[in-house]
Amino acid sequence: MQQFEKKELKKKSENISDWYTDVVLKAELADYAPVKGTMVIRPYGYAIWERVQEILNRMMRTKGVQNAYFPLFIPSSLLEKEKQHVKGFSPELAIVTIAGGEKLVDPLVVRPTSETIMYAMYAKWIHSWRDLPLLINQWNNAVRWEKRSYLFLRTTEFLWQEGHTAHETEGEAIDMVLAALEWYQNTYQEFFAVPVISGRKSTSEKFAGGKETYAIEALMPDGKALQAATSHNLGQNFSKPFVVSFQNREGKIEYVWQTSWGFSTRALGGLFLVHGDDHGLILPPKMAPFQVVIIPIFKKGLEQSDLITYGQLLAEDLEAKGIRVMFDKGDNQSAGRKFNAWEVKGVPLRIEIGEREMHDKTVTLVKRIDGEKFTIARAQLGQEILQLLDSIQQELFQKALEFLKSNIREANSYDEFKAIMQSKRGFIKAFWCESAECEAKIKTETKATTRCLPLDAAEEKGECIYCKKEAHHRWFFAQAY
Amino acid sequence: MQQFEKKELKKKSENISDWYTDVVLKAELADYAPVKGTMVIRPYGYAIWERVQEILNRMMRTKGVQNAYFPLFIPSSLLEKEKQHVKGFSPELAIVTIAGGEKLVDPLVVRPTSETIMYAMYAKWIHSWRDLPLLINQWNNAVRWEKRSYLFLRTTEFLWQEGHTAHETEGEAIDMVLAALEWYQNTYQEFFAVPVISGRKSTSEKFAGGKETYAIEALMPDGKALQAATSHNLGQNFSKPFVVSFQNREGKIEYVWQTSWGFSTRALGGLFLVHGDDHGLILPPKMAPFQVVIIPIFKKGLEQSDLITYGQLLAEDLEAKGIRVMFDKGDNQSAGRKFNAWEVKGVPLRIEIGEREMHDKTVTLVKRIDGEKFTIARAQLGQEILQLLDSIQQELFQKALEFLKSNIREANSYDEFKAIMQSKRGFIKAFWCESAECEAKIKTETKATTRCLPLDAAEEKGECIYCKKEAHHRWFFAQAY
Repeated sequence: MQQFEKKELKKKSENISDWYTDVVLKAELADYAPVKGTMVIRPYGYAIWERVQEILNRMMRTKGVQNAYFPLFIPSSLLEKEKQHVKGFSPELAIVTIAGGEKLVDPLVVRPTSETIMYAMYAKWIHSWRDLPLLINQWNNAVRWEKRSYLFLRTTEFLWQEGHTAHETEGEAIDMVLAALEWYQNTYQEFFAVPVISGRKSTSEKFAGGKETYAIEALMPDGKALQAATSHNLGQNFSKPFVVSFQNREGKIEYVWQTSWGFSTRALGGLFLVHGDDHGLILPPKMAPFQVVIIPIFKKGLEQSDLITYGQLLAEDLEAKGIRVMFDKGDNQSAGRKFNAWEVKGVPLRIEIGEREMHDKTVTLVKRIDGEKFTIARAQLGQEILQLLDSIQQELFQKALEFLKSNIREANSYDEFKAIMQSKRGFIKAFWCESAECEAKIKTETKATTRCLPLDAAEEKGECIYCKKEAHHRWFFAQAY
Repeated sequence: MQQFEKKELKKKSENISDWYTDVVLKAELADYAPVKGTMVIRPYGYAIWERVQEILNRMMRTKGVQNAYFPLFIPSSLLEKEKQHVKGFSPELAIVTIAGGEKLVDPLVVRPTSETIMYAMYAKWIHSWRDLPLLINQWNNAVRWEKRSYLFLRTTEFLWQEGHTAHETEGEAIDMVLAALEWYQNTYQEFFAVPVISGRKSTSEKFAGGKETYAIEALMPDGKALQAATSHNLGQNFSKPFVVSFQNREGKIEYVWQTSWGFSTRALGGLFLVHGDDHGLILPPKMAPFQVVIIPIFKKGLEQSDLITYGQLLAEDLEAKGIRVMFDKGDNQSAGRKFNAWEVKGVPLRIEIGEREMHDKTVTLVKRIDGEKFTIARAQLGQEILQLLDSIQQELFQKALEFLKSNIREANSYDEFKAIMQSKRGFIKAFWCESAECEAKIKTETKATTRCLPLDAAEEKGECIYCKKEAHHRWFFAQAY
């Protein structure tokens, strides 16, 4: 095998933040765009987003959620109808004041989220319990102004799906909130191979205007938490100001019970941060745009076209088994450069084929996760690869799960809490009295915020880690992205 | 069969424009949104757009076009780099002047199209002929300010795909322009069942900043033309100001040759206008979200659950054959109301099942296109429906093709031209000297514009219909949407 010059990649083991930006750029997932805070999602990154769309569309269909599209522009007068909502979002708004060559009387807000514009329509469409539940999702772009961008994790414009539902009863709405949370958890755990903690947010961390927010929280390798997706029980907080009412089964007029929930391109940041290593990304097989890359090793005296035919046949075999394959057959880059490029891009398996492999009817297989290299007969290849992809997916999840488990710590005193936050970070389980004051002080002093109260948290008796007053639950705390 | 009250629908045969708006609203394809000029695409309409996405994604993949995502906001300084481009678009721009609570120094334009922001990135990514061709598409929303909206056909915000490619040679770029035009033609003809004229636009009708524009033009039932999609040869008009250059195979620096092409939600308007009738939409089977609707006819003394089981089995049979089925089994609407609702929504085939059908193991089938009604044995159903869907698709296309053919007229004098435009409208083929002056005068006097010069137009010798000067081609003229 020929030697090749390595693209200089920053080391994850040295500085994860520098590594992250570097790998996102070098793997061609995304790039900085001309406007501060915005980014371009390049084809390789967008293909991963299209996988997310497939996965979530499939999940949403099981409950009868339908896709639709609502306008980008919200009149500011409409946004102001729910007071807490507009208060929460106003510092982040981008506002159109000129359009069609004229100054607008009612300026238009570029949607930061679509509750207000959607519910103005829901009020028009919903009349009777027969119109419920109304279950609508949209895939779109949203804007929340950021001065500094952090590729995927924090950008002025992001892509997402936002589901918005209306129900006859609060019970039904809560079921919906939890169903969406479970879809997000499954997407992260089963597809991203990233374990999460699912739970309820504190009052100060909940969605502006909502009643209760649930979230999935993942732990990044630097011990910081990432809020990966959220699901909100809106109660009747929006249906009242927007007058989304219906005639119930008893003939009485009632306000609907609502939910909203979203999964954004931000969540991809967690996927990239968790699995990569000093050589680049490592994509879990279920998310990888290409699960296998086939690279021919050309040599003088060897007929290129024979090797290309061999590679083509292999690619077709694998595609017939539903495996996503890239056959990188071009001859204007050395094999070494190709190895490196696909390593940075995190393709789970590499197949090398050369004179020997073609002669022996074998392939050389290299696993991205650990660099393990071995030879397999072509006849066994498809089956073998399916098994390998499956075991790699499991292995990635197990590694991340072990990391998560070993980084959840109980703190029984505030000193202990501070000590952990200054050294290892990770999640801390600690009693908290649920007062916003203690929460704010802990944040100021340790940078840690309440992440969530896990869904399955038991009621216990304890003392608030900060004020020592009575507390009933151990909440999850962490420093967050 | 029970009687049912008909939703009052305006008649296509009386006023197509009123009918169109009415049917778009009543079929729940779209609705007016709070901001003038904008609209909501409701789930039934959006499902049709998702079909378009599938169809075009499949076509684009055959040529290696990759999807990506570029930002919504374009700094106005960037937009101004290509003079003709900004001049063409400036009256339609929506501009963000306030963001994050501050007035912006460089206001941001909400993309009317993405040439400028994409090519600023292309300049960064393209270095050598090895980086070419670069073939990128994005599915997104774009904004061009409109004071009055016409659902789908003219809206401030629209959804579309915009493909943007860069090539080593102009020849390759022209091949790409024509390939995209062919994808659009196939989408319209094979899927929408709407025949089109494909051709080149005149100088005054071409894309602002481009070198040449090609379009597909469809004829609406009122004799007006709809420009359904466009494909532009940009030459080096953008690569020069944006410095998108590359080292060619001889080692010299050259500017790339570019194309852009788009298909928008506007094109759906043509689909709805062409096939409908006084009873509502008629969707061609290849575009219909549901190709078949099954409606159970409940009766006193009949076990509802038996009928539902029968319907469920039918639905599964059909789905197994790849047919898109809606089983409308609810019991809070009468069968008559359901017939009407699905008729307005244009579902190609309706299956009615009741006591008799269940007993005889048959179904009653009704064709939306002509109301024809007949009974078929359940055993033959799947095969029969596949054939019916196919023949309906053909029949719709043939009808539209005959209409188109009988509405293309040659005019050999300006009097004849004017007479046609005042009565039947449709397309007129007429010699034109290709001067902008004659074109503008014809437009003022007859409301007809040059639509295109068909790709296969023969070179002939003639006199301009307006100024009598020498002319080489018969151009297509029409009044346009």
